[in-house]
Amino acid sequence: MNEPIEEFRKAGHRVVDWIARYYEDPRRYLVRAPMRPGELVDALPAEAPEQGESYERLLDDFERLIVPAVTHWNHPRFFAYFPSSCSPPAVLGEMLAAALNTNGIHWLSSPAVTELEQVTLAWLRQWLGLPAEFFGEIFDTASVSSLHAIAAAREMADPEARERGAQPGLTLYCSEHAHSSIDKAALVLGIGRRYIRKIPVDAEFRMREDRLERTIEQDRAAGLRPFCIVATAGTTSTSSVDPLEPCARLAERYGLWLHVDAAYAGAAAILPDKRPLFEGWQRADSIVVNAHKWLFTPLDLSAFYTRRPDVMRRAFSLVPEYLRTAEDSRAVNLMDYGVPLGRRFRALKFWFVLRRLGREGITKLLRSHIAWAAELAAWIEADSRFERVAPVPFSTVCFRLRGDNEANRRLLARVNQSGRFFLSHTELDGRFVLRVAIGNYHTSREDVRELWELIQRTADEL
Amino acid sequence: MNEPIEEFRKAGHRVVDWIARYYEDPRRYLVRAPMRPGELVDALPAEAPEQGESYERLLDDFERLIVPAVTHWNHPRFFAYFPSSCSPPAVLGEMLAAALNTNGIHWLSSPAVTELEQVTLAWLRQWLGLPAEFFGEIFDTASVSSLHAIAAAREMADPEARERGAQPGLTLYCSEHAHSSIDKAALVLGIGRRYIRKIPVDAEFRMREDRLERTIEQDRAAGLRPFCIVATAGTTSTSSVDPLEPCARLAERYGLWLHVDAAYAGAAAILPDKRPLFEGWQRADSIVVNAHKWLFTPLDLSAFYTRRPDVMRRAFSLVPEYLRTAEDSRAVNLMDYGVPLGRRFRALKFWFVLRRLGREGITKLLRSHIAWAAELAAWIEADSRFERVAPVPFSTVCFRLRGDNEANRRLLARVNQSGRFFLSHTELDGRFVLRVAIGNYHTSREDVRELWELIQRTADEL
Repeated sequence: MNEPIEEFRKAGHRVVDWIARYYEDPRRYLVRAPMRPGELVDALPAEAPEQGESYERLLDDFERLIVPAVTHWNHPRFFAYFPSSCSPPAVLGEMLAAALNTNGIHWLSSPAVTELEQVTLAWLRQWLGLPAEFFGEIFDTASVSSLHAIAAAREMADPEARERGAQPGLTLYCSEHAHSSIDKAALVLGIGRRYIRKIPVDAEFRMREDRLERTIEQDRAAGLRPFCIVATAGTTSTSSVDPLEPCARLAERYGLWLHVDAAYAGAAAILPDKRPLFEGWQRADSIVVNAHKWLFTPLDLSAFYTRRPDVMRRAFSLVPEYLRTAEDSRAVNLMDYGVPLGRRFRALKFWFVLRRLGREGITKLLRSHIAWAAELAAWIEADSRFERVAPVPFSTVCFRLRGDNEANRRLLARVNQSGRFFLSHTELDGRFVLRVAIGNYHTSREDVRELWELIQRTADEL
Repeated sequence: MNEPIEEFRKAGHRVVDWIARYYEDPRRYLVRAPMRPGELVDALPAEAPEQGESYERLLDDFERLIVPAVTHWNHPRFFAYFPSSCSPPAVLGEMLAAALNTNGIHWLSSPAVTELEQVTLAWLRQWLGLPAEFFGEIFDTASVSSLHAIAAAREMADPEARERGAQPGLTLYCSEHAHSSIDKAALVLGIGRRYIRKIPVDAEFRMREDRLERTIEQDRAAGLRPFCIVATAGTTSTSSVDPLEPCARLAERYGLWLHVDAAYAGAAAILPDKRPLFEGWQRADSIVVNAHKWLFTPLDLSAFYTRRPDVMRRAFSLVPEYLRTAEDSRAVNLMDYGVPLGRRFRALKFWFVLRRLGREGITKLLRSHIAWAAELAAWIEADSRFERVAPVPFSTVCFRLRGDNEANRRLLARVNQSGRFFLSHTELDGRFVLRVAIGNYHTSREDVRELWELIQRTADEL
């Protein structure tokens, strides 16, 4: 049955060469292919094949059908959402993780998965300037990391929920600019939408400390039970940073769990000059930083840190007999700290990235992206047709044409229509705003420069 | 900054050759290396490197330090837990998915991710004999799939929970042999452990229909609100199958959500002669089948099917402005159907596996594993020192030495100590039981035969 290994070897070498060529000259591709919903479904057979097919056919079809249907997040001119790119060493890590397919349910089921996850997350933790008391583990996405944080917060506030079930009245605090995943997590946990307090922001889109405190006080007075503050370091719309130190102080004063969502911007804490923006996060109960955003590591790798692994264990540990091992008392079993049981060897790709690039390489990339964002912001400010609409603490620039939303919508549509660049948008105080998020491993200053030229030309034509 | 692509190419070819050699002769490795907790942590530097390192050093360290710390789930003699192995074509899929690193948040952010996920899950659905009304999506693990199923069940039973928060009193039904992930999901959702009803099983470890019905009736009479039945097709301890048709009938009669956990055994529904075991699951509201268990696809790929995508959307859809797209009304946006927002291109590896092996290839593998399990069961029955303690509907065999638990514990420890094989255990009615789960892509009949010989020899020595 099993194929001759020579066939795999030959196909594998072809794939390596394809990837090398892809990375060598990615600008040959459109960032986003012009296609309509359903086009790929229509192009593929309605049923899987009866007989197995050759690698040649498979790889030909990959190049012919799949690649043109891909939005190239790895393209140097992908500036939408937040960056998420893959550096070459991570590809090797993923190849080997797939080949081994080892599964870190608990320590015994794969010591390497558990221990390399601890080692790589400790390495990152040091770079971020977080103390050793932070315990690290990997989830797939920041949405799932934040779900776990809020579940742990509930465990701390209402340990009886585990037995008796959740009861309405626990209230959660985040800014009106917090990510939608916070709402979603609260819904899933049964917190109820009406107990999610969206605190207003200041002129720079940061959660207002005074309003946060007042709302907590009001809720307490009303007999509700404040249990969790979610502060964001790098909001999705503008990359603003909530006042972390005041949030920590309020969390401590009122006995709330503080979760810091630093999914995108957390990486910048590696840079000493950006560190002050994060002051206070070392007092958080949990923090999420996505390596698959601005750390050149492909999906999925959401690094979750907590100072309260004991609470995580109380919230999530459930060990049936078939998962007991002789090492239970001496080893960390990561299944005890969350919902997923199967655990992919995600740390391997991250180990490859951290070692291949080193702090020096990663620092250089982050600094470049921040510098290019500052240049873009300056070009925008120098062109009187445009306005920059938010500060640029990291590498994300928000701007718009002075004028109505319709003109800005048209501008975005035309820039994206070219297929050569891809930007996304947000809404700020009712205004349609364009976003350029710089942070791709493959991006150069020239890509940013050409984007700005295209934006200017398109504005001329409007 | 960015490395010359030639270095990646050279390293990539080395990795392909390493994988080819690994698959060619996996029996050179111990299934599970003798190491103590903390040994890998101690062997690795306490800090990440300042300067980037060469691929040579990285790959040398991978072979020297990581591989010996791995439990080889891909080893032909790994018979523990449930099978989870990687076939060669999936490695190519993972390489390409990492290289592209495209992210299917919504359709626009990568049409290929959304559409290939729909296509491959429709292909599998047809093979499983499920009707077209089942909507498919991929989660990382069965634990997370089941969490989503139970959240949808709550949405159906108590739509106000979304706004008002969950309230105690919703009751969930599963057998005492249901997987621990069901308990964990219920805890996370705030259902409360006391509302999880563990229904007793019959002599073949299947949920007792009469007891299920009686418990639902009692709970209704007590003013509780039954909302969900979780039936298992292939329990973790013995691979027993709950009576799905009666469960569907009860779910319909009482208006409950029926979730079928077929994480391991669902793959067997591809075989026409095994299909009757699954009769009734086409009436379930949701089903989970892990391709990363018995379908030769590496972690993560948990295939989740639901007949009620409308309820999933109500439970999980929350679309902020920055994620709105022009295609929202015409395309499926998978972020609307669950917690995770970022979506890895997991379908690609599955497409490679389904096409490379075809129904014929997969059928042949499944049939071999089932046949070898039947042989092993016959050998056990023929040796009067042993007893088979559960039926063998699929490829998992539960047995023990006639005698005390201690003797069986020693037997398992000695067999595993050799490092040449790896089995796990469970407990049935207070008895310590050995499990042999066959289902690895690389396993041969000879591996099973040699395992049995080792077990017999070890029993001789005890």
